[in-house]
Amino acid sequence: MKLLDIFGALKKDMDVIEQQLYLSIEGDEELLSETSLHLLKAGGKRLRPVFVLLGGKFGDYDLNKLQHVAVPLELIHSASLVHDDVIDDAGTRRGKPTVKAKWDNKIAMYTGDFIYAKALMMATALENPELHRILAKAMVQMSIGEMEQIRDFFNTDQSVRNYLLRIRRKTALLIAISCQLGALAADAPSSVHHRLYRYGYNVGMAFQIRDDLLDLLGTEKTIGKPPGSDMRQGNITLPVIYALQEEGWRAPLLAELEQIRAAGLTADTSPAINMIRRSEGIRRSEELADRFIAKAFDALDGLPECKAKSHLKEIALFVNKRSY
Amino acid sequence: MKLLDIFGALKKDMDVIEQQLYLSIEGDEELLSETSLHLLKAGGKRLRPVFVLLGGKFGDYDLNKLQHVAVPLELIHSASLVHDDVIDDAGTRRGKPTVKAKWDNKIAMYTGDFIYAKALMMATALENPELHRILAKAMVQMSIGEMEQIRDFFNTDQSVRNYLLRIRRKTALLIAISCQLGALAADAPSSVHHRLYRYGYNVGMAFQIRDDLLDLLGTEKTIGKPPGSDMRQGNITLPVIYALQEEGWRAPLLAELEQIRAAGLTADTSPAINMIRRSEGIRRSEELADRFIAKAFDALDGLPECKAKSHLKEIALFVNKRSY
Repeated sequence: MKLLDIFGALKKDMDVIEQQLYLSIEGDEELLSETSLHLLKAGGKRLRPVFVLLGGKFGDYDLNKLQHVAVPLELIHSASLVHDDVIDDAGTRRGKPTVKAKWDNKIAMYTGDFIYAKALMMATALENPELHRILAKAMVQMSIGEMEQIRDFFNTDQSVRNYLLRIRRKTALLIAISCQLGALAADAPSSVHHRLYRYGYNVGMAFQIRDDLLDLLGTEKTIGKPPGSDMRQGNITLPVIYALQEEGWRAPLLAELEQIRAAGLTADTSPAINMIRRSEGIRRSEELADRFIAKAFDALDGLPECKAKSHLKEIALFVNKRSY
Repeated sequence: MKLLDIFGALKKDMDVIEQQLYLSIEGDEELLSETSLHLLKAGGKRLRPVFVLLGGKFGDYDLNKLQHVAVPLELIHSASLVHDDVIDDAGTRRGKPTVKAKWDNKIAMYTGDFIYAKALMMATALENPELHRILAKAMVQMSIGEMEQIRDFFNTDQSVRNYLLRIRRKTALLIAISCQLGALAADAPSSVHHRLYRYGYNVGMAFQIRDDLLDLLGTEKTIGKPPGSDMRQGNITLPVIYALQEEGWRAPLLAELEQIRAAGLTADTSPAINMIRRSEGIRRSEELADRFIAKAFDALDGLPECKAKSHLKEIALFVNKRSY
């Protein structure tokens, strides 16, 4: 699915972004071009570039400028996925083998480094130190989030707060600054950036919660990788944390998680998933996602009525749609 | 050994840099602080910060500004070493276990990501988009150089040109921009940057050639890791390429390299090292290093006479000193 199916308005500009995305990493070194393009060409929702362009609609919309924000943000996201797949020992992503599976961990590591650096190089073509600073800060937070994720693998004592802090860094911040930097690059007033940042942050939180739900409730066909992958890697997500809080489910679920940990990447996660389904974990996670979406709508409230604002609302609803 | 032993003039300012280096990566997340500090606290020559400060002496020297260049450059260097050690399966660096050895590859990968991002964050505190751009470009080139190194592992058909291009990206560029950005941050005239860049580039080339010689000719005590490490990893350096060009040595050396490849990280490299010592490879490499140092001196020619210029000359001579 492509978010673009919701609205055709940005199609032409998104085609330019798509082309620039490929051009930005082509041509330097053959192997790096190939490994870097591998994941990008597997598709993806291009959520971050869409947010940049929509953010730009609240100011002086100039695609030549905005592409220097939209492309870097998608590249940063892409680089983080390439590194993520190394950590997760993931074999497939978006239905295709990962860089680490098709080549190896080391090549995946440098592919990520290269894509990160290319992203920054493209962004620094804009003479806007504030924008550079916001990007660099977000990258720091993302890498902390990734480390927290490793640190918390199979930590069954983590709190909801813990989880939320982690997905904030891992996912929500980059989406928040996508909305913000679009407006910033288009010289929109700072009150607009702030609202868009808040919108993006809340949509990002809901997005990650839905993504984590999908990993438990989806099928290999709908999510492009086997369900239960998070659990197999030791990534304890919100529905699991909620289920572990229930007295009746805590002990049997802990036992299952221990078995999964022992069995490793070939573990059968269906007994654990069934327990979580029967607990309140799914419903409570969905409710929390709903609350973030409500906050995202609130953040939009003070913004002028325009097409972009409607689109942002549509995306928020889309992100929060059950797709399992 | 510390470069500072050559001249005490910068000692006070370098102490500030050293402190800022630690402060810059402390406090965010416990494990990341620990892994990031691990390599930094093992020491190192701090060559890049020294070059930044000396570059700054050609303009309006302001340590508050210069530290935002000096610290990031040392951090970028440090991050690249952390990732490098993953690729090289290196157990020790600077006489201490590497991050990948003490923790694991995945933690080393995110430690590097974190340090890179912190470096950029600190540099973007300076309102100088050109500086940001030069840094990002250098990071792109460095990651290409790293990938070229992987690609060329055990490639015994590579040319001297190939080798030079690789070390240019891997080492010389970062040293070149260290000199350049010091001057840039101090608002020195652009003719000064260009000369300093050329100086740094040539010193960097000589430095890497000497480093590669040291890996063959040093002892575990002098280099902090077992000699022959490059060869064991498949990194074919200049003396090896020169030796392979000699008809008498080519066949036996190829056979040795094949054995080393098969034996892996425990291979005995002494027969190969002996062959290279008996070939013209060492002498010719030294001569090439000398030529780069001569070019570094040339680059300084047009600069005003000052203490910093003398220091730069001393460093060039120091870098090119035989330490084996």
